Amino acid sequence: MNTKTYRIGIVGASGYTGSELARILIHHPQSNLVAITSESHRGKRFSDLHGQFSGILDTVLIGADELNTGDLDVLFLALPHGVSMEFVKRWKDSGIKLIDLSGDFRLTSPTVYEEWYKKEHTFPEGFETAVYGMPELHAQAIRKASLVANPGCYPTASILSLAPLFHSGIGIDPDGAIIDAKSGITGAGVKASNTTHFSNVNDNFKAYGIGSHRHTVEIQEQLSFLVKKSVNLQFTPHLLPVDRGILATSYLRIEGGMTQQKLNALYQDFYHDQPFVRIRKQAPAIKEVRGSNYADLFPFWDSRTNRAIVIAAIDNLVKGAAGQAVHNMNLMLGVDESMGLLQVPMQP
Amino acid sequence: MNTKTYRIGIVGASGYTGSELARILIHHPQSNLVAITSESHRGKRFSDLHGQFSGILDTVLIGADELNTGDLDVLFLALPHGVSMEFVKRWKDSGIKLIDLSGDFRLTSPTVYEEWYKKEHTFPEGFETAVYGMPELHAQAIRKASLVANPGCYPTASILSLAPLFHSGIGIDPDGAIIDAKSGITGAGVKASNTTHFSNVNDNFKAYGIGSHRHTVEIQEQLSFLVKKSVNLQFTPHLLPVDRGILATSYLRIEGGMTQQKLNALYQDFYHDQPFVRIRKQAPAIKEVRGSNYADLFPFWDSRTNRAIVIAAIDNLVKGAAGQAVHNMNLMLGVDESMGLLQVPMQP
Amino acid sequence: MNTKTYRIGIVGASGYTGSELARILIHHPQSNLVAITSESHRGKRFSDLHGQFSGILDTVLIGADELNTGDLDVLFLALPHGVSMEFVKRWKDSGIKLIDLSGDFRLTSPTVYEEWYKKEHTFPEGFETAVYGMPELHAQAIRKASLVANPGCYPTASILSLAPLFHSGIGIDPDGAIIDAKSGITGAGVKASNTTHFSNVNDNFKAYGIGSHRHTVEIQEQLSFLVKKSVNLQFTPHLLPVDRGILATSYLRIEGGMTQQKLNALYQDFYHDQPFVRIRKQAPAIKEVRGSNYADLFPFWDSRTNRAIVIAAIDNLVKGAAGQAVHNMNLMLGVDESMGLLQVPMQP
Amino acid sequence: MNTKTYRIGIVGASGYTGSELARILIHHPQSNLVAITSESHRGKRFSDLHGQFSGILDTVLIGADELNTGDLDVLFLALPHGVSMEFVKRWKDSGIKLIDLSGDFRLTSPTVYEEWYKKEHTFPEGFETAVYGMPELHAQAIRKASLVANPGCYPTASILSLAPLFHSGIGIDPDGAIIDAKSGITGAGVKASNTTHFSNVNDNFKAYGIGSHRHTVEIQEQLSFLVKKSVNLQFTPHLLPVDRGILATSYLRIEGGMTQQKLNALYQDFYHDQPFVRIRKQAPAIKEVRGSNYADLFPFWDSRTNRAIVIAAIDNLVKGAAGQAVHNMNLMLGVDESMGLLQVPMQP
Repeated sequence: MNTKTYRIGIVGASGYTGSELARILIHHPQSNLVAITSESHRGKRFSDLHGQFSGILDTVLIGADELNTGDLDVLFLALPHGVSMEFVKRWKDSGIKLIDLSGDFRLTSPTVYEEWYKKEHTFPEGFETAVYGMPELHAQAIRKASLVANPGCYPTASILSLAPLFHSGIGIDPDGAIIDAKSGITGAGVKASNTTHFSNVNDNFKAYGIGSHRHTVEIQEQLSFLVKKSVNLQFTPHLLPVDRGILATSYLRIEGGMTQQKLNALYQDFYHDQPFVRIRKQAPAIKEVRGSNYADLFPFWDSRTNRAIVIAAIDNLVKGAAGQAVHNMNLMLGVDESMGLLQVPMQP
Repeated sequence: MNTKTYRIGIVGASGYTGSELARILIHHPQSNLVAITSESHRGKRFSDLHGQFSGILDTVLIGADELNTGDLDVLFLALPHGVSMEFVKRWKDSGIKLIDLSGDFRLTSPTVYEEWYKKEHTFPEGFETAVYGMPELHAQAIRKASLVANPGCYPTASILSLAPLFHSGIGIDPDGAIIDAKSGITGAGVKASNTTHFSNVNDNFKAYGIGSHRHTVEIQEQLSFLVKKSVNLQFTPHLLPVDRGILATSYLRIEGGMTQQKLNALYQDFYHDQPFVRIRKQAPAIKEVRGSNYADLFPFWDSRTNRAIVIAAIDNLVKGAAGQAVHNMNLMLGVDESMGLLQVPMQP
Repeated sequence: MNTKTYRIGIVGASGYTGSELARILIHHPQSNLVAITSESHRGKRFSDLHGQFSGILDTVLIGADELNTGDLDVLFLALPHGVSMEFVKRWKDSGIKLIDLSGDFRLTSPTVYEEWYKKEHTFPEGFETAVYGMPELHAQAIRKASLVANPGCYPTASILSLAPLFHSGIGIDPDGAIIDAKSGITGAGVKASNTTHFSNVNDNFKAYGIGSHRHTVEIQEQLSFLVKKSVNLQFTPHLLPVDRGILATSYLRIEGGMTQQKLNALYQDFYHDQPFVRIRKQAPAIKEVRGSNYADLFPFWDSRTNRAIVIAAIDNLVKGAAGQAVHNMNLMLGVDESMGLLQVPMQP
Repeated sequence: MNTKTYRIGIVGASGYTGSELARILIHHPQSNLVAITSESHRGKRFSDLHGQFSGILDTVLIGADELNTGDLDVLFLALPHGVSMEFVKRWKDSGIKLIDLSGDFRLTSPTVYEEWYKKEHTFPEGFETAVYGMPELHAQAIRKASLVANPGCYPTASILSLAPLFHSGIGIDPDGAIIDAKSGITGAGVKASNTTHFSNVNDNFKAYGIGSHRHTVEIQEQLSFLVKKSVNLQFTPHLLPVDRGILATSYLRIEGGMTQQKLNALYQDFYHDQPFVRIRKQAPAIKEVRGSNYADLFPFWDSRTNRAIVIAAIDNLVKGAAGQAVHNMNLMLGVDESMGLLQVPMQP
């Protein structure tokens, strides 16, 4: 394996994905974080925005147009959807490996994008080269990609939960899956709003985006590849009074022949060589993966109702964003895929 | 309507249902809370156990054997299951109206009880007289009852969510319902344990009792009465890092002919005269019912997947316990059913 | 005592003080809440802003210029400081009893106001008639007032903590007091900001306004009246990851002659007839007063260091705002001072 | 510097200090964690107790008597006080470097210990060799020590806050300091109790141990060394509804001549070469150090009141326990003192 040090940039410093990328990359043995950009905070220090980095990462933020792209190997785009596509377009021929953490290139076509994101896509050509960056499903393609679309947080938990069943070839109803998902508030971003006001979240809980959340189609498309049929499933997100973490509870009726033992084997086999998927013997709690890149899965067979119930726990900012992005970077660079990503989850 | 003042006792002072009963009854215009018992805290003041009552309710706790039953009109049993049945047995012929907040008499038979509660029932005769105390379903029977089995917290949210659909006569698959429920930690009781340790709950979330929670059968039995078929549904509880509140998200596929408008009408009609069920136009959050006896329901029709999704929010300690118990008392005493129960939910 | 029903208006519907006033007044036996105003939400229902009031208070919000002032007995101003003074000016001769929950008339003069609030006061004449609305200190003046300046939340906890000592005539150093105060986030208001973003508050804690918080001078002025000397004390606020509640820990060295017994007697005597001050025998927690109008005080004498330490707990939205305002209203109207204010604190 | 790998053991697996030691040591380049003991969980896997370690540290726990002490370089004692002294006694001549995280050897003498801990000390000789393990004050002694008494969590924050002032030689009243400290619940340990019950902590806040907390004397003794006088200060702990973190707000009146600039210089100089003390330009929040070994200090001069106010933030489990212990280990072993301890704080 190579021992080169790579030069890394992050576009978009103010959000949580930006600060999580920095938290991971700062200890990544083959990364050198050389530039961080912010249009609105240009000239400030990174640690002015994220006090935890005081004395650790006091880099001055630059504008994206100040990036010396000839000097970079990898660029992470930690930007909102709609904004990110413009930067992909700008740098598409730069030779830099691009990892886009937004939703702009996760779907199969601009048409589907426009239907679910309710906005025009200004760089439709990008869909031709973009690879969906879920290492457990697409490692080979990611290794060769120049543009990786990093998966959404809910889709990461949801797809990992159901992929073994949809890939298995056992007779399932592809429209029968129900994913009841619960996320910490960081999924709503760093921006202050009524949604993120402490008193609207603390000691509270609610569902949102019922029947219409745009991560639904991302999940459906990936599961559809696996089951080789169209998929029309139910996805309901909820907002937890916690900072980080997604727990997804998925339900799928399976007619005939399933047992707990078979179900376990199915999951063990499917994720056999994956460094970050842990098949648990009991239902995981989100704190058991907090701050880490692990995805914990608990497949349960309910013989009374003939349903598989799969519990998945991830940290939405790590496995659901920055950690998975660095995993993709490792694959694209040809270094050990778990490099820099083995932090022990922080509990309590 | 009568204007009599009734003499009330509470057996079991130390738990949350005990303190919530006191919080409600203290301002109930026709109640006089004359006795509160505790075996383990006999001789202490009620406010020694529950500091919020300092100077408000400093009543000295007595043992249950010190109760002057001839002097009481109503007795609330705020005891663990297994213990409660002994007290019901003791007072069955006392003429006092008994409202049991435990799970001891909620099911249809001692056989079902023993199967799901994994313990012997020592007063099986009680099932003959016990009425399931859900006023929205059984008001007439409750009015005449001498023993009311107050519903469980999860069943209250779950049954209210699905009752209109199961009662409607439209063609549903009675085994098709999935209830994904989330509860605050007070549902686990006042007793210190690993489950209730702050650092195991705070910023955390997990599922538990998957496929085996005993509230499943309570929900199934009540919905079975309504649909007039056996019901074998899925119920999965989760633990929220909040004190109070249950949010239940229920899913049921309905083939053919449903619309959002019809669904709304179904719920509006079913709960037409109910003072505590609020049919909401958007998904309720648990804080919107906190501290109150309201059950907020949001029925949603997803035409893409042909599923009804019903969100229910209750305060598990009020509508799911003490409030519903006082509602039952009001019906049993023949006073206004909402007396003492119109507190505005406390948000934030 | 009179049994008249009074007509009440609230100016400013969107904030927490507005919704808390409504929560209290809706069950106040001699109040009729006839009008609620909002400039930014005119035309919406009150329950559109505060979902907990669905079906309970669906009043349509009007603009302040639509108020029929001839029809009102009492008007609560639940407005930001700087805005409130304009409304006081407008209605000063209306004959309506005005209770201002902002900081605009709490201080002794426009000069002091402008020094600490860093803005010009546009109705300096108001200071001549305004009465500082702390019933435990100024009940007589409040009864006759046409304009009451409702105390700040921190000052309520702080002044109640130290008043007996500053009033006692024992030799204290008036500049020696240190008040280390901690407040829930609702003290920062309903507006979304970085300060109130869940992830900046949850599992977090910090000090702010060190040495410069404007409540300092309000506390100093009131204690100065009591001790009859100028007071220059230390006040440090902190932000708790809770919705409601202030806990103030106050320190004052007392040279010679103090004992725990004397300290208790001092506090018991000073608050002898006060319905909402509870002298506790152990340190109160904020949840023991949550949702209620109680102020719990725990005076402790540390003979090792010769310091009195006083712990005070209040609900900042009730005793520190809306509850105290209704208490003032009761005094102004000549009804029982505790009317509508005896809610039991909500714990857990 | 040496590049040897050291063999490490942890006595006491079930608590938070045990799991935090493992979280740190597992990535420490010169450590090999070879044994973890637990009397009550002997035979279980470490990851059975701490689910976050599933697949990461599945070591089987052994009894302390199974430790092969000849095989160990360093032993961490993560035990309750009173228990720890027995193990120190047992291994005093083993040649293993002992780092005791309990309070058993932090004070200057068995007499003081017995006065504040209210129990007999069974290994008084230990005080002769034990070194107080605060690297910022005692690095030289720690390097040579065979037994290090790792400081308490509150004392770490408190002593670091005041050391520069007490060491400065400026005229301060050594009895004048007031430390108002606030800690997350993990400070109360892993054991389930009323104190740690979620509903007694969540959305709540209270003071405890007023005037009597045993960390008082530990702080006094260390500051006394620095100021070369006896110290009799005020220390008041409070319980925050957070998992981790201590914020200490310290007050000290200084007569004459202090300025903000001088105060900053005093702190910058005192902590000049310390890798883990960050002198901040604004008040730190506890999340800005969460999960890390940093101690953030903000010294503030209030010229209105002539008081220095110092805010300190640490993670009680890291800088206040396991991290400081590993820092001590690094010093004792002669490796880079910050080795394995440079984790970026986890925010949000």
